[in-house]
Amino acid sequence: MNTIVVKFGGSSLASAAQFRKVGDILRADPARRFLVVSAPGKRYDGDTKVTDMLYRCYDLAAAGEDFSSALEAVRARYGEIAEGLGIRFDLESALAPIAEHLRKGPQRDYMASRGEYLNARLMAAWLGWTFLDSAEYIRFHADGTLDPDTTYKLLGAAMAQTEKAVIPGFYGADETGRVVTFSRGGSDVTGSIVARAAQADLYENWTDVSGFLMADPRIVKDPMPIREISYKELRELSYMGASVLHEDAIFPVRSSAIPINIRNTNKPDDPGTLITAEHSEEAKKRTVTGIAGSKGFTVINLYKNRMNQERGFIRRLTGILEDFNIPIEHMPTGIDTLSIVVDDKELAGRIDEVTEELNKQLKLDTVEVFENMALLATVGVGMSYRLGVAARLFTALADAGVNIRMIDQGSSEMNIIVGVENDDFETATRAIYKAFVE
Amino acid sequence: MNTIVVKFGGSSLASAAQFRKVGDILRADPARRFLVVSAPGKRYDGDTKVTDMLYRCYDLAAAGEDFSSALEAVRARYGEIAEGLGIRFDLESALAPIAEHLRKGPQRDYMASRGEYLNARLMAAWLGWTFLDSAEYIRFHADGTLDPDTTYKLLGAAMAQTEKAVIPGFYGADETGRVVTFSRGGSDVTGSIVARAAQADLYENWTDVSGFLMADPRIVKDPMPIREISYKELRELSYMGASVLHEDAIFPVRSSAIPINIRNTNKPDDPGTLITAEHSEEAKKRTVTGIAGSKGFTVINLYKNRMNQERGFIRRLTGILEDFNIPIEHMPTGIDTLSIVVDDKELAGRIDEVTEELNKQLKLDTVEVFENMALLATVGVGMSYRLGVAARLFTALADAGVNIRMIDQGSSEMNIIVGVENDDFETATRAIYKAFVE
Repeated sequence: MNTIVVKFGGSSLASAAQFRKVGDILRADPARRFLVVSAPGKRYDGDTKVTDMLYRCYDLAAAGEDFSSALEAVRARYGEIAEGLGIRFDLESALAPIAEHLRKGPQRDYMASRGEYLNARLMAAWLGWTFLDSAEYIRFHADGTLDPDTTYKLLGAAMAQTEKAVIPGFYGADETGRVVTFSRGGSDVTGSIVARAAQADLYENWTDVSGFLMADPRIVKDPMPIREISYKELRELSYMGASVLHEDAIFPVRSSAIPINIRNTNKPDDPGTLITAEHSEEAKKRTVTGIAGSKGFTVINLYKNRMNQERGFIRRLTGILEDFNIPIEHMPTGIDTLSIVVDDKELAGRIDEVTEELNKQLKLDTVEVFENMALLATVGVGMSYRLGVAARLFTALADAGVNIRMIDQGSSEMNIIVGVENDDFETATRAIYKAFVE
Repeated sequence: MNTIVVKFGGSSLASAAQFRKVGDILRADPARRFLVVSAPGKRYDGDTKVTDMLYRCYDLAAAGEDFSSALEAVRARYGEIAEGLGIRFDLESALAPIAEHLRKGPQRDYMASRGEYLNARLMAAWLGWTFLDSAEYIRFHADGTLDPDTTYKLLGAAMAQTEKAVIPGFYGADETGRVVTFSRGGSDVTGSIVARAAQADLYENWTDVSGFLMADPRIVKDPMPIREISYKELRELSYMGASVLHEDAIFPVRSSAIPINIRNTNKPDDPGTLITAEHSEEAKKRTVTGIAGSKGFTVINLYKNRMNQERGFIRRLTGILEDFNIPIEHMPTGIDTLSIVVDDKELAGRIDEVTEELNKQLKLDTVEVFENMALLATVGVGMSYRLGVAARLFTALADAGVNIRMIDQGSSEMNIIVGVENDDFETATRAIYKAFVE
């Protein structure tokens, strides 16, 4: 029998009406045996997510203030869902230990995790499925990193004895039982870990969009959806991916070649985006899979006589940037010139210090700094099967009047990265989209 | 009064007829006050350069064999020139210490330098100019590197007291008086040092071609000459520069902003190529200044999950290559992919060792090796002033059916480097030339 692990995000679980959609989806395919849930999200614009309510409880309790009305707001959210579903769920006994914990001296990760915990218990009660508490099966090391070996062992054993189960996302615990959470959006990671532990055939990640789009819809009007994308392509498009799927969610399933299907809870008939381990034949027929980019980069352009003959130059250069703890995004080179592209967030206003240190240690002839650069990645495994992709791309940019400040294409031929000025970013995105998609 | 330092190469000094051309050129402009000479080169295809004759003398003497007929061949070359010029020059006394040196236990650098030494003495005698022996003025450190401070002091003082002088190229001496030579073609360097010491207005480097051409004439039929090029552009075109002008010749004059004029002894009316410190207004009006490339590179394509989030990855990578003493020519990057381009000559068949070490130390997911790659640099300061350069270039390559394996353009915008397969190198060169020049 096939096994599908399904994960629903907060907006898919914000209300009783959303719970019913989840129920319909689960019933539509009996292979959907393991369900990972987020905490209830926003029901409408301006609403508060349950997780944020819980952080509020924590903040008040930690400050020694009265948290009772804040906790009551949490109770009300779950109460509304239970009532809407018409089920009896003993919310008071579920909440009692949380109130007790708050009084005794609260722990932030524990409080944050209660949104998923309560939601999973409520969902399990409604569906009549087993509840498996992640604190017992998802194990963290003392340093806060996942202990995958123990996790897969514990989780695999529990799931082997369970027909259908609901598992709260976002958290686990260390050896002492102390709750540890993933970073925000971490329920995606829990779903991936559960899929891997179950050796699932598919990991369905249900959210409020029908998968990835070929370009940012805030820039390109009604961009085409991406039906299928390989993990590798998705990583190359990482400038866009993070808001739909947590980056850390890729790795557990990827190594087991379990595909991820991004689906829309509100449009369950949409096929969504299938993320696959290998490039499909269909993908090879396309030229471009997606276009993604980001503003806010700085280029530091180094010039030095005979740089290309100076052994160890690049190693020393990268050492200096590492001392500043600034990762290098790209490093296009001429013969006596070399540019380093860094993220403004990482640079954090230290450009003068950085250039001074580069000058001092590398004895450069010139250092130029170009700020306000955007990077734009045009990605597709199909690009490597076709002639004239670069011609089409750069002709589109020239026709749109976009100045190109940097080009970077390695021999994977799956990604051409272009640097343009921040102000040209939207124009460039639309030009490339038009050239390859419309 | 203006001062021009002139340097003539071996083919410009191979015979009495060539000497006369040099005399005409010197007389045409009295500012040509300091003359640096190479040793007599080939008079015809299959002829032997005097320097090679001298190496032969050295080899024989070092092996304890009879060198007299080899030295006689040297004498004959100078004798023929002196006779052709109709001057009396006491060749026997000039050669006697050389024969003596050979008998006593020869030193290779000393022997190699005698071609320039004798030619300078002969030229000085013919012109009636002062002879300044480089062994007295061009000073090397004990480790074989130039001592610029002492050199400029000694040389400057001597030249300040001299109206017109002939100076042998290619060599100098260390503190003990032991002769030290530059690498092959080093008379270009001597000329540059003399120009710097004289604070000359111009350094004329006379050779047997009318300067640089926009592309390799073995690939492009009758390429246009380059009238003017900046030092920076020339460096970016270094794949082509070395055969016309020794790379080390640029640096002494460059720091004093002395232009170099490459001229043709056999076509003295040709303006040649002027190499300037700054980009000229005329150069900015052009799009492309030159196209140059080279075959014989290997691309190592590294793939690793989340490479771009791994701090220190590039530094460790460059450290590994440095341990192998292999310089990295280019390093185009995607997000989780990174390519390193290395010269096959530096790789020296160690590709398996290198990839094994990269795998071991960097824990890569995949390493791919692409051999037989050529690099092609399209260079011009004017490229940065124009829109659509990349479009034109890549359209030309696509129309010619050339697959692009790598693209690298930094924010200097003066050089687009493209990687193509060795077999496409000529086609690509012609396509780019046609797109920008014809």
